[in-house]
Amino acid sequence: MRAEIVSVGTELLLGQIVDTNAAYLARGLSEVGISIYRRTTVGDNRERLVTALKEAFEESDVVLTIGGLGPTMDDITREGLAEALGDTLVQNEEIAEGLRRFFTKRNMPVLESNLRQALVPVHGRAIANPNGTAPGVLFEKDGKIGIALPGPPNEFIPMTDDHVLPYLRAKTGNIGTIRSLVLRVAGVGESAAEDRIKDLMLDSNPSVAPYAKVGEVHLRVTAKADTAEQAERMIAERAHLVRERLGTAVYGENDDPLEKAVVHLMTERGLTVSTAESCTGGLVAQRITDVAGSSAVFLGGVVAYSNAAKTDLVAVSADLIARVGAVSAEVAQALAEGARKRFGTDYGIGVTGVAGPGGGTEEKPVGLVYIAVSYPGGCEVDKSNFIGSRAIVRHRASQNVLNMLRLRILNG
Amino acid sequence: MRAEIVSVGTELLLGQIVDTNAAYLARGLSEVGISIYRRTTVGDNRERLVTALKEAFEESDVVLTIGGLGPTMDDITREGLAEALGDTLVQNEEIAEGLRRFFTKRNMPVLESNLRQALVPVHGRAIANPNGTAPGVLFEKDGKIGIALPGPPNEFIPMTDDHVLPYLRAKTGNIGTIRSLVLRVAGVGESAAEDRIKDLMLDSNPSVAPYAKVGEVHLRVTAKADTAEQAERMIAERAHLVRERLGTAVYGENDDPLEKAVVHLMTERGLTVSTAESCTGGLVAQRITDVAGSSAVFLGGVVAYSNAAKTDLVAVSADLIARVGAVSAEVAQALAEGARKRFGTDYGIGVTGVAGPGGGTEEKPVGLVYIAVSYPGGCEVDKSNFIGSRAIVRHRASQNVLNMLRLRILNG
Repeated sequence: MRAEIVSVGTELLLGQIVDTNAAYLARGLSEVGISIYRRTTVGDNRERLVTALKEAFEESDVVLTIGGLGPTMDDITREGLAEALGDTLVQNEEIAEGLRRFFTKRNMPVLESNLRQALVPVHGRAIANPNGTAPGVLFEKDGKIGIALPGPPNEFIPMTDDHVLPYLRAKTGNIGTIRSLVLRVAGVGESAAEDRIKDLMLDSNPSVAPYAKVGEVHLRVTAKADTAEQAERMIAERAHLVRERLGTAVYGENDDPLEKAVVHLMTERGLTVSTAESCTGGLVAQRITDVAGSSAVFLGGVVAYSNAAKTDLVAVSADLIARVGAVSAEVAQALAEGARKRFGTDYGIGVTGVAGPGGGTEEKPVGLVYIAVSYPGGCEVDKSNFIGSRAIVRHRASQNVLNMLRLRILNG
Repeated sequence: MRAEIVSVGTELLLGQIVDTNAAYLARGLSEVGISIYRRTTVGDNRERLVTALKEAFEESDVVLTIGGLGPTMDDITREGLAEALGDTLVQNEEIAEGLRRFFTKRNMPVLESNLRQALVPVHGRAIANPNGTAPGVLFEKDGKIGIALPGPPNEFIPMTDDHVLPYLRAKTGNIGTIRSLVLRVAGVGESAAEDRIKDLMLDSNPSVAPYAKVGEVHLRVTAKADTAEQAERMIAERAHLVRERLGTAVYGENDDPLEKAVVHLMTERGLTVSTAESCTGGLVAQRITDVAGSSAVFLGGVVAYSNAAKTDLVAVSADLIARVGAVSAEVAQALAEGARKRFGTDYGIGVTGVAGPGGGTEEKPVGLVYIAVSYPGGCEVDKSNFIGSRAIVRHRASQNVLNMLRLRILNG
């Protein structure tokens, strides 16, 4: 089975946004064992879209479109796909009713344009969209399959994972598959990680490829086999070897970020944590509470941006701040210990630093960050000099906080 | 002049890397005033590449390829482009000599395959590559222009900026440039925004196109004119009309997020704010402090995740929580007022809700969020039912917080 992806949108065509959806879908199709013939991007122009779709159907069995399913005049994909396949769209009353309810509930008028989203093909059906109003559309006509998905990634990704790929996997009868697994590594740089697995990187099946991310490294293990089970077994064996080499530096797999590993570890062990953040301004608390179920672990935090707040909220001595400065190992420790005491948690986090772009001095430059983890047996303080924008400095700091906390728990 | 971009590479096609180069080139072409007809991605397959190139030359005057210019067997673009245009490649002695020197200097053997990089078209020339061994190639034949550029961004970007765009600008006789401006809109949905500017959307130059984002809408105003000055003037006039229709719903321009608009507004007026967050877990504080210079505006915040923390940190009465529940308009108001008092700020923010995926009840479902803004003259409380994942619910809540705060300040 051969597929082609057509991305729709003038913003994409003109490069105003980068097309991460098409790459995501392409990876998914590969994993299902479908070869991709070509990818195309067209603007919000119905004639060009239909031309591209017709050309695509000449070469491929499945054509998947991304974008252009919204309620506005620019949104032309539903009609374009119907035209390319010679099919007709009809209003689905159930979907129309759902849309009417959606807008009425929000006290918004039900515009005629919104009801365009209830159109479904005569030879096909809608694909449910739990995160938005525009359902996807699936055509099955004359041996060809046409699938239209909406552009917003939070709608596109679950629809791809939960509907499109399982549907296509069933269609292909599952012959030959490519699987992959990402091992996520923190606290070790790309070169150092690569150094420890150099020999494994020489094999092509399974292959191991490193990708540097901000504050972490991802190792993608990929295997190709006749069956999913075989591929999974090859991956498991190879991943085991990688884990042996990298030890606790491997914190998790696939899409699970560091905060999830930390929350799960703490939940498992019945531990609690609290935060007192200065330069990260709530980023650490936000990342931890981004994990579902974090309320069992995270009791609370303070964002002590001003010096008065540091003293008032978590009892950092004003004297200490005057003596050593707010950006110091001592104040990081006082923040961590203050949080731990204030919230009565097992662990307390303190972060203070210069996020930039302003506020740096020769002695305390932009990127200087002190992190403290207060724990039952003491307090660990770390000093870093991060390089990058304000957002990068803050992200790297939060990454180090979470990794220090994780390793501290693992090391007892 | 009409152009098409063809990206070459199996890694790109399969989505193992995201194609940022094509987006970069598309933006550059737009600025030079060249319209882009289509973008295509093909794998390392010469036949498919040639087919895509021939199709592209049927529709467009200029076809630019990215990738596939290296020394390996996979690198097929140079030959593919020659075949599509019916041209011949010959070895350029100067480039060959440069390649020999390059490899000899590094004590590497000069392979025949490396010398393929010295091939240039009979009807055309090489494009110098200061950062790599593979020069670009430029064909000019039968009124068509074919340009091949290497894939590594550090080679591709300077070649695009220093050679390709100036060359094309000269070719077009500098007639015409495309400029655009994004107006960012919050508190109004895509359809409602569109409803108010429907007539403006019918014009094609300047054009106005809406794009739905999570919790906001972007309106892209694009103008094509002979000179940059003309285009900018057309955009300014059209943007003025859009702003008249949408009023304070337009919060900013281009890449500046809502938090930046809020921090700038508060800085201008010398106002301060503090936060007491439950379900957003520090996200509001994090977004505000993400803005450089926010320390003048944001004095501090608390993440009152547990009920005890709500009472202890910002004096929300335990009685009140017991009576109406933590997720209630009353507790949102108490959080906002508690924060405002605790930090002594002009404004105080309170957020409480059910972020999900667990924790919802029939009465208080996942997505229910109360937001309160306490201000010198009183307290405004808003109730929302957000749909989507935990991350989406939290993001939409933070978006509403920032917009409520902004409108409250603007409305005195």
